[in-house]
Amino acid sequence: MCGVFGIFGHEEASNLTYLGLHALQHRGQESAGIVSSDGISLKSYKQMGLVADVFNASTLGQLPGRSAIGHVRYSTAGSSLLANAQPLMVAWSMGQMSVAHNGNLVNHDALKARLEQEGTIYQSDSDTETILHLIARSRGATFEERVVEALKQTVGAYSLLFLTEKKLVAVRDPFGFRPLVLGRLKNAYVLASETTALDLIEAEYLREIEPGEMVVIDEQGLKSTFPFEKKRPGRCIFEHVYFARSDTELYGLSVFETRKKLGMQLAKEQPAHADVVIAVPDSGVPAAIGYAQGSGLPYDMGLIRSHYVGRTFIEPQQSIRHFGVKLKLSAVRATLKDKRVVVVDDSIVRGTTSRKIVKMLKDAGAREVHVRIASPPTTWPCYYGIDTPSRQELIAASHSVDEIARYITADSLGYLTLDGLHAAVGDPERKTFCSACFSGAYLTPLKV
Amino acid sequence: MCGVFGIFGHEEASNLTYLGLHALQHRGQESAGIVSSDGISLKSYKQMGLVADVFNASTLGQLPGRSAIGHVRYSTAGSSLLANAQPLMVAWSMGQMSVAHNGNLVNHDALKARLEQEGTIYQSDSDTETILHLIARSRGATFEERVVEALKQTVGAYSLLFLTEKKLVAVRDPFGFRPLVLGRLKNAYVLASETTALDLIEAEYLREIEPGEMVVIDEQGLKSTFPFEKKRPGRCIFEHVYFARSDTELYGLSVFETRKKLGMQLAKEQPAHADVVIAVPDSGVPAAIGYAQGSGLPYDMGLIRSHYVGRTFIEPQQSIRHFGVKLKLSAVRATLKDKRVVVVDDSIVRGTTSRKIVKMLKDAGAREVHVRIASPPTTWPCYYGIDTPSRQELIAASHSVDEIARYITADSLGYLTLDGLHAAVGDPERKTFCSACFSGAYLTPLKV
Amino acid sequence: MCGVFGIFGHEEASNLTYLGLHALQHRGQESAGIVSSDGISLKSYKQMGLVADVFNASTLGQLPGRSAIGHVRYSTAGSSLLANAQPLMVAWSMGQMSVAHNGNLVNHDALKARLEQEGTIYQSDSDTETILHLIARSRGATFEERVVEALKQTVGAYSLLFLTEKKLVAVRDPFGFRPLVLGRLKNAYVLASETTALDLIEAEYLREIEPGEMVVIDEQGLKSTFPFEKKRPGRCIFEHVYFARSDTELYGLSVFETRKKLGMQLAKEQPAHADVVIAVPDSGVPAAIGYAQGSGLPYDMGLIRSHYVGRTFIEPQQSIRHFGVKLKLSAVRATLKDKRVVVVDDSIVRGTTSRKIVKMLKDAGAREVHVRIASPPTTWPCYYGIDTPSRQELIAASHSVDEIARYITADSLGYLTLDGLHAAVGDPERKTFCSACFSGAYLTPLKV
Amino acid sequence: MCGVFGIFGHEEASNLTYLGLHALQHRGQESAGIVSSDGISLKSYKQMGLVADVFNASTLGQLPGRSAIGHVRYSTAGSSLLANAQPLMVAWSMGQMSVAHNGNLVNHDALKARLEQEGTIYQSDSDTETILHLIARSRGATFEERVVEALKQTVGAYSLLFLTEKKLVAVRDPFGFRPLVLGRLKNAYVLASETTALDLIEAEYLREIEPGEMVVIDEQGLKSTFPFEKKRPGRCIFEHVYFARSDTELYGLSVFETRKKLGMQLAKEQPAHADVVIAVPDSGVPAAIGYAQGSGLPYDMGLIRSHYVGRTFIEPQQSIRHFGVKLKLSAVRATLKDKRVVVVDDSIVRGTTSRKIVKMLKDAGAREVHVRIASPPTTWPCYYGIDTPSRQELIAASHSVDEIARYITADSLGYLTLDGLHAAVGDPERKTFCSACFSGAYLTPLKV
Repeated sequence: MCGVFGIFGHEEASNLTYLGLHALQHRGQESAGIVSSDGISLKSYKQMGLVADVFNASTLGQLPGRSAIGHVRYSTAGSSLLANAQPLMVAWSMGQMSVAHNGNLVNHDALKARLEQEGTIYQSDSDTETILHLIARSRGATFEERVVEALKQTVGAYSLLFLTEKKLVAVRDPFGFRPLVLGRLKNAYVLASETTALDLIEAEYLREIEPGEMVVIDEQGLKSTFPFEKKRPGRCIFEHVYFARSDTELYGLSVFETRKKLGMQLAKEQPAHADVVIAVPDSGVPAAIGYAQGSGLPYDMGLIRSHYVGRTFIEPQQSIRHFGVKLKLSAVRATLKDKRVVVVDDSIVRGTTSRKIVKMLKDAGAREVHVRIASPPTTWPCYYGIDTPSRQELIAASHSVDEIARYITADSLGYLTLDGLHAAVGDPERKTFCSACFSGAYLTPLKV
Repeated sequence: MCGVFGIFGHEEASNLTYLGLHALQHRGQESAGIVSSDGISLKSYKQMGLVADVFNASTLGQLPGRSAIGHVRYSTAGSSLLANAQPLMVAWSMGQMSVAHNGNLVNHDALKARLEQEGTIYQSDSDTETILHLIARSRGATFEERVVEALKQTVGAYSLLFLTEKKLVAVRDPFGFRPLVLGRLKNAYVLASETTALDLIEAEYLREIEPGEMVVIDEQGLKSTFPFEKKRPGRCIFEHVYFARSDTELYGLSVFETRKKLGMQLAKEQPAHADVVIAVPDSGVPAAIGYAQGSGLPYDMGLIRSHYVGRTFIEPQQSIRHFGVKLKLSAVRATLKDKRVVVVDDSIVRGTTSRKIVKMLKDAGAREVHVRIASPPTTWPCYYGIDTPSRQELIAASHSVDEIARYITADSLGYLTLDGLHAAVGDPERKTFCSACFSGAYLTPLKV
Repeated sequence: MCGVFGIFGHEEASNLTYLGLHALQHRGQESAGIVSSDGISLKSYKQMGLVADVFNASTLGQLPGRSAIGHVRYSTAGSSLLANAQPLMVAWSMGQMSVAHNGNLVNHDALKARLEQEGTIYQSDSDTETILHLIARSRGATFEERVVEALKQTVGAYSLLFLTEKKLVAVRDPFGFRPLVLGRLKNAYVLASETTALDLIEAEYLREIEPGEMVVIDEQGLKSTFPFEKKRPGRCIFEHVYFARSDTELYGLSVFETRKKLGMQLAKEQPAHADVVIAVPDSGVPAAIGYAQGSGLPYDMGLIRSHYVGRTFIEPQQSIRHFGVKLKLSAVRATLKDKRVVVVDDSIVRGTTSRKIVKMLKDAGAREVHVRIASPPTTWPCYYGIDTPSRQELIAASHSVDEIARYITADSLGYLTLDGLHAAVGDPERKTFCSACFSGAYLTPLKV
Repeated sequence: MCGVFGIFGHEEASNLTYLGLHALQHRGQESAGIVSSDGISLKSYKQMGLVADVFNASTLGQLPGRSAIGHVRYSTAGSSLLANAQPLMVAWSMGQMSVAHNGNLVNHDALKARLEQEGTIYQSDSDTETILHLIARSRGATFEERVVEALKQTVGAYSLLFLTEKKLVAVRDPFGFRPLVLGRLKNAYVLASETTALDLIEAEYLREIEPGEMVVIDEQGLKSTFPFEKKRPGRCIFEHVYFARSDTELYGLSVFETRKKLGMQLAKEQPAHADVVIAVPDSGVPAAIGYAQGSGLPYDMGLIRSHYVGRTFIEPQQSIRHFGVKLKLSAVRATLKDKRVVVVDDSIVRGTTSRKIVKMLKDAGAREVHVRIASPPTTWPCYYGIDTPSRQELIAASHSVDEIARYITADSLGYLTLDGLHAAVGDPERKTFCSACFSGAYLTPLKV
């Protein structure tokens, strides 16, 4: 769960990277960093925290040059350290290089063990450092050859941006698990995890970087190659369900449109006798609007999201504990009072939040609460870069829908089917998306 | 534009005040403060910034006692100083007192001039300090008598919470311009600008503090009196239009319900040939839902609000300036492409934001943009505590609706009528609400 | 225990005030503040902390104008609050005024009680606020008349700098308890607690502000008057003993020279059979050099003071506690080993530090430790602005010299006589200095 | 210019390391860091800044375990980055290791080039990282064997502390350029750059780690070996002249005693017709006392050092620039007026500071100023870990003593002879100390 942004050929490379990262902030809130190049050397700045807190005019001023890459990171538990913040930047035989990575290598443990046996030291916990070691140890003649030789040894998910003194290189793994798009701003090329970053800086969207594609940008222009063995595509379907921002175009589809379709399909598959459809804001809103349109029930606002929720909120102790969801969401009595309510959310992970939401709706007067989820039960962990909990913690991995409904105290609970989900993203034969988190059908071996 | 919160008789008085202020954060983001009493002396902590940033476990730990008042402040231009942050706390002949004020005194300049002539010094710019001076100079026998004597000299808007070592006193001006509600949490009384603060801490809503009412709470319980000359009520209608949080019950009405009614009424008064209704989030959402229900047009999401907008965002310089609205809102192409769009907002102040929004919608493919405003043209400044710009800056004070439509480049523009607005809040004869910002019919003399 | 600085008529008034305060930092480390005037209005900035931490280019940039006053404060226990940081700045009938105060009013409680009875509110704990209230309530025609009328009601110690939009006014109480000097830098007048602040900014020293003198500086120049009833002078002798910086000229005497004389006199009064004379650095060094010269014993370095002692040092817990003095001072074995050591300090307050120092010297090998104190036993608290502990805590108030010697485990202990002290400052008849902390002979009534 | 500290076998390992680093703060003020081991894994915390600012109870609490190493760093220009702060901590084939290094490798460029050719990446600019790479790539069976194999490839200066999960390893290069001492605190072994760190935590001084010695400490106790080819010792003589703290015992000699001897010798070699001897505080004080004793002239205080000089002091702009030395030192007129003054300093580097000091003394009234330097002219840069400027910047490398005297406007200038310096440290035949900075006689090849 990360976001990457890169730009080559613009006077304000680091400023634009800063804005681009801001537009990708939803992909990672733990740390932010930028590396820039002035053609001669790289400069780096990164810190724990949100983009707007990490950078200011002074720190951006220390990042000169016409090319830059940036990264926002959501770290998994236990390794929330500055040493793991990206981009990583190192010196090596060819000079300097840096990298920003969205994804996860499935064979990282094996690669790391081999490299350490060969005398390599690790200064971070991340699989991204392994990629740099492999590049540095490659015997390839050019930087690009070394990148390819390195990545051929890896198995897993990667959308990567490399910055050297003179080049910006973008690579997407052969499955295309994680998104990566190409844009143009005047004479500059721009790369980003989502189109929303292009929109903010008013760059023109050119196209998706294809699964398995490597793009090299330097003063001579852009060159594209496909150096890896071709695989069936495995674009992450969960980006559409939850992770990407609603206003993004993902894999050529509008995320908002897709989410509305999920809601419409859900209305068909899981109708409810109800008076009103509401969303769990903000991620559930498009599907709820779709459900309302699909069901003919009125859409209304039953839950309001606070603007002022931050990570630093200190919860007071003792008697007044457990404010969790209440600090973030509050119920609208006027909408809910004596109503039969359909509440639409994108997914259920552990079930604890859903349980609190149902209680909140009933406390506010809802007569019945019908929970509708715009995706199938989440039953398998993701190994390709989404930070899902282990199988034991996924409530749907060990409980039936009825059991879950009872746990969250809903009057009814309905999930979308996997067929319905694939249909909504235009992949009815399940050939271009990865939906392993719902099906367990992983596209790579998991231990290599 | 401020929020106040108070509690008397709870072990965790300052912790609950902290939570209450968090729920009132939308009423003021510049500074936050709490004063608590342990029955013997008062302690104060206040700083510039958001509630969650100003307070932490350590600063809350310095605020012991079973009673507390708190304040969030949105300061007007030029006086954004810590010296003006509230609650104010002073020593005086009776010991210590502190005050949190929402409102504005119309005769402040005259009062201040008189007091300074009599040898008073001012340590802040605020009219709230004047109230403290008047109390200290009163000859009344009790604190309550002095408060009444002081306030009788003032003209204007005030919802006030006073905390002394032993008492919590709440007063609302005879017009009741600004809201103030009373609740109960176990044995404690709670006071707040809006019910949303009661909801968060799970306090029971008892009733509104009435216009002209003074409530005194001490260990003996609660006493209510009406010490001021009775006036026709003048509850602020703009709280319903924009300022209060949607999930609040205001003056006994659901704000969300009212806003939906405004939208329905607007649909009747200002219909549009269009394909879809969207809102300017978040404040325009309820009215947009109402407009959709009233017009029969589908409600959809055409603009998305970023979660990560903060006051500290540094905008890069030079070529990439003017990101203002874009950092906060982004357009959803899928909803807008080739559509005739009705976009509903709560009000237009200067017109510059509306102009940017219309451009953003058209850039995203909207064929026509019909702007609908769920209130009448804002033509007069507020002198009762809402921070509106001067008349010169209010676009509707000097331009016709057609001119404004042209300025903001909308295909059409429609405002709600003042009658429609009053009808929606259940005051068709304009007898209980103040709508001077729309009509110029101020309820008090303006210069005293 | 405070320092004040003021300047009138210089382009860089606040920058120079910043430097001046830095040179007075030893007089107060808790808070620092500056108020400047551009001729039209006053601006203020103050914070808890050291001068170099409180101010930076940005905060100094918010203090424009050609006149400024500043203050460093060492607050007494319990009131270490920003509200008490100085200069105080207020609005009043004549516009704005601010004040920086070094000293203490003996009749403050009575004045405060009277003012509160008359309807005054206090926003700080400080007696300085009382002075502002008295000025504001005065009926004098001019600012200067009001200042005089106000101060005539006070009893105690004050070296005061007032800044208004157009004037800088300096006043020293009729006893002249606390120092205040006048200097010149090009066309600007400069005022400071000590000459060391003039030296740093390369201002020329003109003269002491006399006890009972008021100096008014404006665009017309400088006017001096003596508006108060004349008193016998009572310059603080403890400034010479300990408080002022060694390189300062105080009341026309070199502090360093005086301290050396104290040491020489001490050598005469309290000789010792010893091998070497060392100082408790830094304040004891001049007297130790004097003692060495007076006794003919070699001066050497037996204790070293760390450069890196700060107020924020966190002492680890449990087994390794009580590092106090060791973090600040360390012993030089080479100087001390097997030697009979005379260690010279300026004064003994509670005795705990001296006890630790004697232990440290013996642990480092000293055969005998003879403690010599370059002032008489400190037996009475100061009510004129030095932050001494209460009588109970002053070890010399309740113990004989022999008892103290035993408590601090010294082989011998000798104090200077009060006669010797007065002789060293050129006041053998005890007519121009206040030495009440040694004699109890206070120059004013203590409760008024 | 760095300081190292390590401890093995104490409950409060990281707390004691914090105190030890505080006592070594004079060896490096740019960054501070600690790595601790609980026997299973290592934890690290480091930041830019002083020890007392970098650490607090919370950060120390994150460093559990019974062993720890720490480091303070004075970085050379251009590489003042957190990435270079030490200790470095890495994962590798044997688990985790960390290192704290005082010194400098002469053949670092060659080693780095070779390692990069072999596929190594560098995440810092420091030669210390090279040592870790060499260890990781070694084929030795044990950690100690690998350390030895790695260090045998290096040429230069190193006093090193390594911490692994289970061991603390200390190594000093065969010349012993940089100091390293061993102490004991109850059952724990302690290692530090200087004895001053042992003194603070009340550890017993056992002995110097010998040049070429490796000490391995684990739960079984301490083992000492001498794995490297024996060299003639080359202990840094400049530590005695300037760098070490006066209260330290260095190479078995009291630094204070040595400095006094330097002053006495200087009095013999470079007498002066003068009235008084003063020091440039604080580093010049012992030599000045020695000079006074050697010459029979009285020692006095002519310059005072401010306690409040920090790195963060902002100098105001424009007309009042160039306060540099004045913020740090001030002259004592009483000592200097009309006197012929000998001022003793430890060394002259560029000459600019000496020039300002002479001017300051003359401005304060000194009739003649005779500068005496307690070391020979500094004519060669150090390659063994002292951060001296390049030859061009060393004034003595290109100017005669007469020319320097004229530049600094001294009435006379006298340096100590190299013979006098070696005599004072008990090495008259120049066989055990390195004094290359004065003689150019480097003990290793400089380019390898």
